[in-house]
Amino acid sequence: MSKPKVFEKPTGVKDYLPHAVAKLRHIEREVLQCMNRWGYEQIMTPTMEYYDTVGAASSTSDQKLFKLLNNRGTTLVLRSEMTSPIARVVSSLLKEQPFPLRLSYHANVFRAIEEEAGRDAEFFQTGVELVGDASAAADAEVVALAIASLKAAGVERFKIAMGHVGFLNGLFEETLKGRQDEQEDLKKCLLGRDYVGYRERLRELALEEPLQRELEGILRLRGGSEICEQALQLSGDATAQASIRHLCEIWDVLKAYGVCEHVLIDLTMIGDFSYYTGMTFEGYAADLGFPVVSGGRYDNLLTQFGRPAPATGFALKTNRILELVGGEAEGDGRRLLIGYDRAGRDHALAEAQRLRESGAVVVTEPMESESGIERLPDGGAVRYGGRTYGVFMPFFKTEGGSGA
Amino acid sequence: MSKPKVFEKPTGVKDYLPHAVAKLRHIEREVLQCMNRWGYEQIMTPTMEYYDTVGAASSTSDQKLFKLLNNRGTTLVLRSEMTSPIARVVSSLLKEQPFPLRLSYHANVFRAIEEEAGRDAEFFQTGVELVGDASAAADAEVVALAIASLKAAGVERFKIAMGHVGFLNGLFEETLKGRQDEQEDLKKCLLGRDYVGYRERLRELALEEPLQRELEGILRLRGGSEICEQALQLSGDATAQASIRHLCEIWDVLKAYGVCEHVLIDLTMIGDFSYYTGMTFEGYAADLGFPVVSGGRYDNLLTQFGRPAPATGFALKTNRILELVGGEAEGDGRRLLIGYDRAGRDHALAEAQRLRESGAVVVTEPMESESGIERLPDGGAVRYGGRTYGVFMPFFKTEGGSGA
Repeated sequence: MSKPKVFEKPTGVKDYLPHAVAKLRHIEREVLQCMNRWGYEQIMTPTMEYYDTVGAASSTSDQKLFKLLNNRGTTLVLRSEMTSPIARVVSSLLKEQPFPLRLSYHANVFRAIEEEAGRDAEFFQTGVELVGDASAAADAEVVALAIASLKAAGVERFKIAMGHVGFLNGLFEETLKGRQDEQEDLKKCLLGRDYVGYRERLRELALEEPLQRELEGILRLRGGSEICEQALQLSGDATAQASIRHLCEIWDVLKAYGVCEHVLIDLTMIGDFSYYTGMTFEGYAADLGFPVVSGGRYDNLLTQFGRPAPATGFALKTNRILELVGGEAEGDGRRLLIGYDRAGRDHALAEAQRLRESGAVVVTEPMESESGIERLPDGGAVRYGGRTYGVFMPFFKTEGGSGA
Repeated sequence: MSKPKVFEKPTGVKDYLPHAVAKLRHIEREVLQCMNRWGYEQIMTPTMEYYDTVGAASSTSDQKLFKLLNNRGTTLVLRSEMTSPIARVVSSLLKEQPFPLRLSYHANVFRAIEEEAGRDAEFFQTGVELVGDASAAADAEVVALAIASLKAAGVERFKIAMGHVGFLNGLFEETLKGRQDEQEDLKKCLLGRDYVGYRERLRELALEEPLQRELEGILRLRGGSEICEQALQLSGDATAQASIRHLCEIWDVLKAYGVCEHVLIDLTMIGDFSYYTGMTFEGYAADLGFPVVSGGRYDNLLTQFGRPAPATGFALKTNRILELVGGEAEGDGRRLLIGYDRAGRDHALAEAQRLRESGAVVVTEPMESESGIERLPDGGAVRYGGRTYGVFMPFFKTEGGSGA
């Protein structure tokens, strides 16, 4: 007989038990506090948005959106990311507030198709948006804050790979002018970090030798600030050159923040959202194949909501960080157990109130006697009802416990 | 011309700006910490559940459920409350854990129809479930914790009205045996606190004088523990009598917690969920017409998930509390502004890093000179770009600011 479905939760979504919740809440608190210290203020938006507005602007593919109808027959979506909802708020509720705006969030987001690959259909993101500042300093601030946030979350070893959408666009326009499909094919390889596939596609194009070399050359464009020098020589395209100069400026500011040891320039990088228009970045933790943070500049998205403005930001993949970082157990050891019989009850509960007010964690349980209590070798710790407590306080009047 | 829909959010859902988020987060933190001190451990469950399981068990009417299809064609719902999802977890992931289980949560829940009445379609609840304990002490613990939670949230003046589903059921069975529809009619009046309607229905029933008096009498059954005495005399039905005795016991334990000043026995009380089987309660804050907390005992719900157990709990209506309690502004005054020109930049950003590490909230802005800074009469406070900062630190090398 198969297990009845009635006890199940939907595939792709999760329950978090106390130990995981304690860790998740810890990460959430530390990261939001870090963002707050950089002047970012937290906002919250609804789980549901209009499909035609935020859903469309999110640049999440249609099949990945969870859709539902409200009772007026309008299509809603469960938010798939937070940048588009925040763009909506910046253009409506916050439209009188002058730029730059610094906003942060911690939110659950939804992607429908993921469950098929055994991935989460609902997961958490913690991030920021810096709206109304087009400067390299703004991009650098966001990258430096991403680094500070990862540290605040307890991620110790990580690298930020930083690229620029404009460099690849410029280079491809220069070398494969008008051959849009082939450009897209090559970009798709880079997005998937499929460098073997990239080389194969390139060979299939049968380009002239110098062009071929140029396009293969970008695979080597990963490293420190020296990469910018090499890139300037690789492409003479104006867009590509301006992009590289912008990256150099960002690098300069990151030096002032003292965080360059964490940053790698990677000109093969393409952000995973089509709304990115400039610098993009991804953060990789040691021993983890997928990014724990991603972000970039999106200077056109706000236009869709009627308040054109440059913007840059990032989102931490909070669930991945949760799996990555250790975390002490909630500490059953610190919990205090008060056992009482009928006659000791009033005194026991009053004492529990007093202890809680002084900050202690106190569980009260009626019991017949102390005989259910198993004393542990560890100091005053006990086991009772399958759980460990750091201290046991008996309130038995009838059986002569230590209670009043 | 009507405002284009593209900037709108769906009706019935909300954006929370920084000031409101700060207040909401404060309430959430204080209440969860309070629950933790009582030994309740936080869990989280998915936003989406199966319609056939949690959706059905939630006792939320079908038209109030937000439904959607997953990509296998199965109907999902957005959770409408947290008691049923937790019952699912208690019966699955936690099935090896011995009772009693003390669990807490803070979650957003969804009710589809509410938006028509201008009410929220998505709102927050913060609550607990105490599973596996049928005693009056367990009910009292939950009521006392609801009182402590309201205080922790900053609600100062409130009353808890406590009743018992069994009393009304017993009384109606005794007086209107077999007349189910009429019983339901009367209960509906009580649920809506429509006492005028209740009296009218009663007259229409044209009962014998003593029965009529008995059923009208319950409207006066609101007050302190003396109500229990009166109720015992009103109905001789065994279920009604047992219910009253259970309430008396709860009252006794609440005395030990020292919280009776906040509690009122109200035998006209019917909980708003059909899964309630015993004691139910609602909390009313001064000057507010609707409850800020509601809860009760539900001894049959767990059976639906395959792990039969008595249980009791409550949920704070966190959004209503948010509207109720004051809250200091996020304190722009505490924010520090560092302004810098190109030459002062590196020193400025390094100093910002140092200050943030020591806990300060620091915004950095490039500027041409100090001329954009408006000094306020209040100490060192300044206005810049439409915002107030408690302190301004200039880093201008070229113009001789106080920077390095």
